[in-house]
Amino acid sequence: MIYLNKEDILKSITLDECMATVEEAYKIYADKLFNMPDRIQVENGDLTSLYMPCFTEKSFGTKILTVAPNNAKINKPIIDGVMLVNNIETGEIVCMMDGKTLTSVRTGAVGGVGVRHTTSEDVKTIGLIGTGEQGFYQVLYACKARNIKTVYLYNRTKEKAIKLQEELKKELEDVDIIVVNSSIELLKNSEVIITATTSHQPVIDNKKELLKGKHIIAIGSYKPDMRELPDALFDVVDKIVVDTDFAKEESGDLYQPIKNNLIKSEDIENMGNFLRDNKGFDMNNKTTLYKSVGMGLFDIVVANKIYEKAIKNEIGKNIDL
Amino acid sequence: MIYLNKEDILKSITLDECMATVEEAYKIYADKLFNMPDRIQVENGDLTSLYMPCFTEKSFGTKILTVAPNNAKINKPIIDGVMLVNNIETGEIVCMMDGKTLTSVRTGAVGGVGVRHTTSEDVKTIGLIGTGEQGFYQVLYACKARNIKTVYLYNRTKEKAIKLQEELKKELEDVDIIVVNSSIELLKNSEVIITATTSHQPVIDNKKELLKGKHIIAIGSYKPDMRELPDALFDVVDKIVVDTDFAKEESGDLYQPIKNNLIKSEDIENMGNFLRDNKGFDMNNKTTLYKSVGMGLFDIVVANKIYEKAIKNEIGKNIDL
Repeated sequence: MIYLNKEDILKSITLDECMATVEEAYKIYADKLFNMPDRIQVENGDLTSLYMPCFTEKSFGTKILTVAPNNAKINKPIIDGVMLVNNIETGEIVCMMDGKTLTSVRTGAVGGVGVRHTTSEDVKTIGLIGTGEQGFYQVLYACKARNIKTVYLYNRTKEKAIKLQEELKKELEDVDIIVVNSSIELLKNSEVIITATTSHQPVIDNKKELLKGKHIIAIGSYKPDMRELPDALFDVVDKIVVDTDFAKEESGDLYQPIKNNLIKSEDIENMGNFLRDNKGFDMNNKTTLYKSVGMGLFDIVVANKIYEKAIKNEIGKNIDL
Repeated sequence: MIYLNKEDILKSITLDECMATVEEAYKIYADKLFNMPDRIQVENGDLTSLYMPCFTEKSFGTKILTVAPNNAKINKPIIDGVMLVNNIETGEIVCMMDGKTLTSVRTGAVGGVGVRHTTSEDVKTIGLIGTGEQGFYQVLYACKARNIKTVYLYNRTKEKAIKLQEELKKELEDVDIIVVNSSIELLKNSEVIITATTSHQPVIDNKKELLKGKHIIAIGSYKPDMRELPDALFDVVDKIVVDTDFAKEESGDLYQPIKNNLIKSEDIENMGNFLRDNKGFDMNNKTTLYKSVGMGLFDIVVANKIYEKAIKNEIGKNIDL
């Protein structure tokens, strides 16, 4: 078995490879060539333990995460976990990797694939609302997916936006990284808007005149009572693409508008089918929404690629079982 | 996080400590101070992936095993897996250890605790039917629980019994280890009989005259269609103790006799209650049955003790997350 920590994971796979791997996962999703039980959740007091097994034809593994909300009080990460990768023939565990970094990287790549396929090709500006760890990877992948010149950052706590600005400046030397004071200012300036918050109220202003023609990449809401997007978006949106069909039930950003008859479930397409069947839907001057909630299939397909590349490039540490 | 392989695990805990820890687990079971969901099982073709989370007041963890029956054809272990131990407050993974060795050790100790509490104090002879990896640990722990002078081994494939004989001779220098040619010969010579097979048919002869006064420790059957014990045993047995209440449904060695009205469910006591309430049930000259199917509670309590002792004695390797 090999073990890959954060640095090992980041060294093993490039942003482009990771996005190509997410596109492979979308192909597997569209072709239904996977076996993914519902996410298993065990609660004990404030702790939640999550088990996300998934099998494809080539790979098999499980992401195991623990969520401990009280850790915020003692300045520890709320989430800890590992990804186990098994040999699909023998079941042997061949690789264990840091589950936090895998989640960040694959979620960034899932966002990046959305940017690549649901925005106009010539977009130059991105606005990011929510400037946590996930925001960092969203911007990194978005800037790889399109030729972005300027990134606008907004967070209710401005210091957090400034902190991310500094981190992004190190990674994206040719991109202007600008902290703005309001979501309105961000909306006015950005062609692509990425939301990566854990909000229960819309973080984008409910003004359709500001939303028309924009490309929205919504990453944050993964529960029915979580919401990042305003109702006005659904007045003007031309195309909605989701990462998984169950996003319609899991995310308040779709569940609530469907329940309130602002959109119809059947008008929402999943990215797997969209990539397979896409006969050239033109995103220019269109208002688009790409909504992701994530799934274990992304984890195992990306983790397996990271594992293969780590072996090839002799990255990671051996553990004798 | 520290990682413990087979050698590390065996170095970290003595046989006596491990049995004392299983007795602690039984106390937790009797007091109902644990949170253990049903074992989670995911199947994909010939592979089965098992997730066994368990929480106690002090510890939390998950054993993850893969079962690949086809591995036997290529001389690889059928089972692979790991145990993750988490901090009960923060959820952080503090230790990962070889799941195969943990399973062997804790199952051996569960058997040993049965020998210690359901056999006459002065027994000198053991017979083991089924001489795989698990048989090795059963004998080791049984010889620690009682002052055993002779161990009889029986296996349908005699070479396997001879192989185990050689291994046991290295560990138990003061004990005679004898391979016998039939289960009848084994029954005649042994006061304690341990069964550790995966059989679907009884492996003990259906003769009550040979079973009267014997102490049976049955470890193998963990599914309703698996059976090691003959019907005749239930004609003569005075006391039945199980490791878990659900053993009555899970093991064919109890499920079938209950269904066929050979025994009553309410006459079967669990070891947790037995140890807590035992006002001195005399095992001398009694026919007893101790039946174990195992549970995640044993894994986490034993794994947590192994982890604590490994930290104290600086055993294992550090893994940077």
